[in-house]
Order: sequence, then structure tokens, then C-alpha cells
Amino acid sequence: MTTLVDQMLETYPADLGGVDRQKLADCIRECYACAQACTACADACLSEDDVASLTKCIRSNLDCADICFATGQMLSRHTGYDANLTRAMLEACEMACKACGDICAEHASHMAHCEHCARECRKCEQACRELLDSLG
Amino acid sequence: MTTLVDQMLETYPADLGGVDRQKLADCIRECYACAQACTACADACLSEDDVASLTKCIRSNLDCADICFATGQMLSRHTGYDANLTRAMLEACEMACKACGDICAEHASHMAHCEHCARECRKCEQACRELLDSLG
Amino acid sequence: MTTLVDQMLETYPADLGGVDRQKLADCIRECYACAQACTACADACLSEDDVASLTKCIRSNLDCADICFATGQMLSRHTGYDANLTRAMLEACEMACKACGDICAEHASHMAHCEHCARECRKCEQACRELLDSLG
Amino acid sequence: MTTLVDQMLETYPADLGGVDRQKLADCIRECYACAQACTACADACLSEDDVASLTKCIRSNLDCADICFATGQMLSRHTGYDANLTRAMLEACEMACKACGDICAEHASHMAHCEHCARECRKCEQACRELLDSLG
Repeated sequence: MTTLVDQMLETYPADLGGVDRQKLADCIRECYACAQACTACADACLSEDDVASLTKCIRSNLDCADICFATGQMLSRHTGYDANLTRAMLEACEMACKACGDICAEHASHMAHCEHCARECRKCEQACRELLDSLG
Repeated sequence: MTTLVDQMLETYPADLGGVDRQKLADCIRECYACAQACTACADACLSEDDVASLTKCIRSNLDCADICFATGQMLSRHTGYDANLTRAMLEACEMACKACGDICAEHASHMAHCEHCARECRKCEQACRELLDSLG
Repeated sequence: MTTLVDQMLETYPADLGGVDRQKLADCIRECYACAQACTACADACLSEDDVASLTKCIRSNLDCADICFATGQMLSRHTGYDANLTRAMLEACEMACKACGDICAEHASHMAHCEHCARECRKCEQACRELLDSLG
Repeated sequence: MTTLVDQMLETYPADLGGVDRQKLADCIRECYACAQACTACADACLSEDDVASLTKCIRSNLDCADICFATGQMLSRHTGYDANLTRAMLEACEMACKACGDICAEHASHMAHCEHCARECRKCEQACRELLDSLG
């Protein structure tokens, strides 16, 4: 299925360099999806009766949303590509997703929003790792 | 098809108020998709030979991306819902998408990234309008 | 005192239009300062023993931070100025600052971070209003 | 001089850990200032007659703004501090500021907005490095 992210990559008017276009598209999609899920999960945690036990989860969600969004924005740009900066942000994003996925996973059994968010964090973490590995 | 945005709405642990859940989910999806498309379109314009004629399009893309992201973030939160602020941001977002869609549409015939971006801006504009109308 | 925001306005290479440069510079400064204060206040609320009573304040802080940042970004751009969109975002930002300032002010007497944040929200609200009024 | 960033740090209701409060406050200030300057510089470049020669500078500005903002947001939170993620983002931010400062410095002699932006990028790069070094 061709998505809008794919279409924007296909119609970029210059060379994308040697990047794996499928892995790039997947990573862009996961970064925006993870930013949304983490923002929603932070808010869902705020509405739990037991919010006092979820403050680290909320903070991790907020960081992960900010970092995923900045990474998705950066990966959506190809003009004047900076390989080292791309790697550094992908590594930070992978780390943010791992941290947030771990803490959400602790609550997944009794909070379905954390279950969904943890799964998305894992997907985004993996998409960052696969793109990183493909960059050589 | 149930998406992650739907799942996060379904698992919000408190009352979503009288909001139309389908229209809310659609609008959230379009806000993030439009933020990504506008960021990519601004960068694609930067790589066009004729970038000097595209500076207003780039600026419109950058504003639209920022406003769509802020709107998507806000719509992903339900705790302590503020109807007036939600309306004000939806109106600003609808206006940003209309302005960006108009300017991208001018270039759509010869730049496919502007064609895709204009179409996404229309979808996001409409999703904001439909959610606004459903809020009463 | 000339700040970096002033310097960036003074060195913009084209016409800024009839905008009041001082009011614009003040509003840009307040938007970024308010985004930072609201982000810090949301986090400070998360670390209060009584976080369960502060969830609406946290949500209002998060919205206000997102909207102030998007507004500050938009006001930092002058190419292809869109008066209607600028007004719509300034109105949304003024409203976000008023809402967040009101809720922080309720807690100001016993939480100093809410006191500082409420004061900054008032300043940003006023800067948005003064810039709006000067736009005619 | 005590600024709002200092006041928000001083009124955080829990322990800030062993962090150097002055270096943290400086880095937060520079992250938001650099996000603003880079956003303004990208727009100023868009209005230069010679925009076609500035596309890499614009792209670098846009990335640097996104990364500085995400870093400033993260540094404004202290609840559930994650030292490894903080370091990874500070390293990405330092790298973004170095890259953007280098490219703006190339244009500093004939474009005053790039001169101001390059200087701010250096300040933010240094603030990230000093905070990183103080974290041990």
C-alpha cells in the first residue's frame, strides 16, 4: 500500500542518496505515530485514579513524543543530508522509545493505553534501529 | 480498520465528553499526516531549481506543519477539555491548511510533491471543519 | 537592551510590513519563555505529592506550551506574511495563556512554580493582545 | 540576574539530583534562544535574493530548531530523570548546533542574520558541551 509518506519520498525532486527508501518511510511513519501515541498515553495516565504512581511514565511519554517528532521532522528532509546528525538523532530516538516502551510495558497488563503505547514504542525503536543499520 | 489513534481513544480511562469519536480520530490522523507532508513539501521545494519562486509556499508549509502538530497534540489530550480553546485551534488549523493547500495547488500541475501536499491540506482542512461542526 | 530576537528582526533582509517591531519582538520572546515555563510547570506539578489534584493544570500547561511554541515559530517568520492566520494564532495563543494563567493562579499561593508560570502566562497573554491590537 | 528559567528550577518541588543548576539553566536558555534564532534565520535566508545558494543553510537551520526545542523541553523536565537519554540528546543537540553554526558562519560576512545565528549556535553548542561534561 502506498501511503502519503511514500508519495512525498517518491516526488522529492533530487537524489535521496543511497538510503533504503522503504526503511526510511517506515521510520518516518513510526516517528509520527509514536509521537501521537505517547502524547495520548501521557494524557490517559493523567486521568487514571492512580496517577501518582505514573509520573515517571508520563515524563517518559512526554520526552519520547518530543524526540520522535523532532526525528520524524528531520527524516522528512533530504536537502543537505547530514549523515552524522541523522545517526545521532536516530540513536537518541531509539533510546527514548526503548525507555518509554519499557516503562509502559510495566503497566501494560492493567492499562490498555500503556499496552498500545508500549507496542508502538517497540515498533518505532525497531524502525530507528533498522534505518540506522541500513545507513552503514 | 482500527488504527492506533482509535485504540488510544478507546482506552482513554475517563469520559471523552460528547465528542464524535470518529471525527476526532480522523482529525488527529490528518493533523499528524499534514504536519509530515508539509515538512516534506517545504524540503522538496528547497531542492527545486526554481526555489526562488517557491519561498511563500515554503513559509506556508512551515507554518502549517507547526500548527497542525500543535493541534494534533491538543486533540490527543482529553483531560480537562477546554471547548473554547479547542475551537480556536481548530479554526487556526483549518485556516492554515486552507492557505497552504491554496498555494500548493497553484504549483500542483508541475510539482507532484505540491499536488500530494495540497490534497493532504484539503483533507486536514475538511477534518478540522467537520470536527468543529460536530462540536456545536 | 538589544536581544537576539531584536537582532534577528533587524537583519531580516526584506520588508517587515507595517508591523510594530517592538510589540512583535516582545511577543516572540514571551511565546518562547511561556513555552518553557509551562513545560517546566507541568513537570513540577508531576512531582507534587498532590499530583492527583493538578491534572487539569498539567494538561493546560501542555497545551499552552505547544500553542506558544507554534505561535513563536510563526511570528519568527516574515516571508509571505498571512495577516489572517497570524491573527487566528495570536487569538488561540492569548486564549491558551489566559486559561493556563487562570488555573495556575488558583495554585499560586501554595506552589511557587504555578505562581511564576501564572505570571508568565499573563505576560504572554498581554503581549499577544498588544500585538493583535497593533495589527489593526 | 535571576531569570524565569532559574525561578522554575528553584521552585521544582523535588530533588534535581546532582546536576549543576547554573549549567542546566544556561543550557535550557540557549536551547530555546537557538530554536528561535534558527527559525528566524531560515526565514531570513528564504527572503535573500540568493536563496538558491542557501538551501543547505535553511535545512540545517530547520533541523537545529527542531532539535534545540526538543532538547530544551527535555531539560525543562526533572521527574524520572534519565541520564543516558539526556546525554544522547545533548550530544545530538551539540552536533546540530555545530553543523548549523559552521554553515551559517560561512555566510556571516555578508548576511548579518547568519552572523547572529552562527554566534547563537556556538553558544548553544558550548552550553550543551558544558552541561554534558558536568554530568560526568
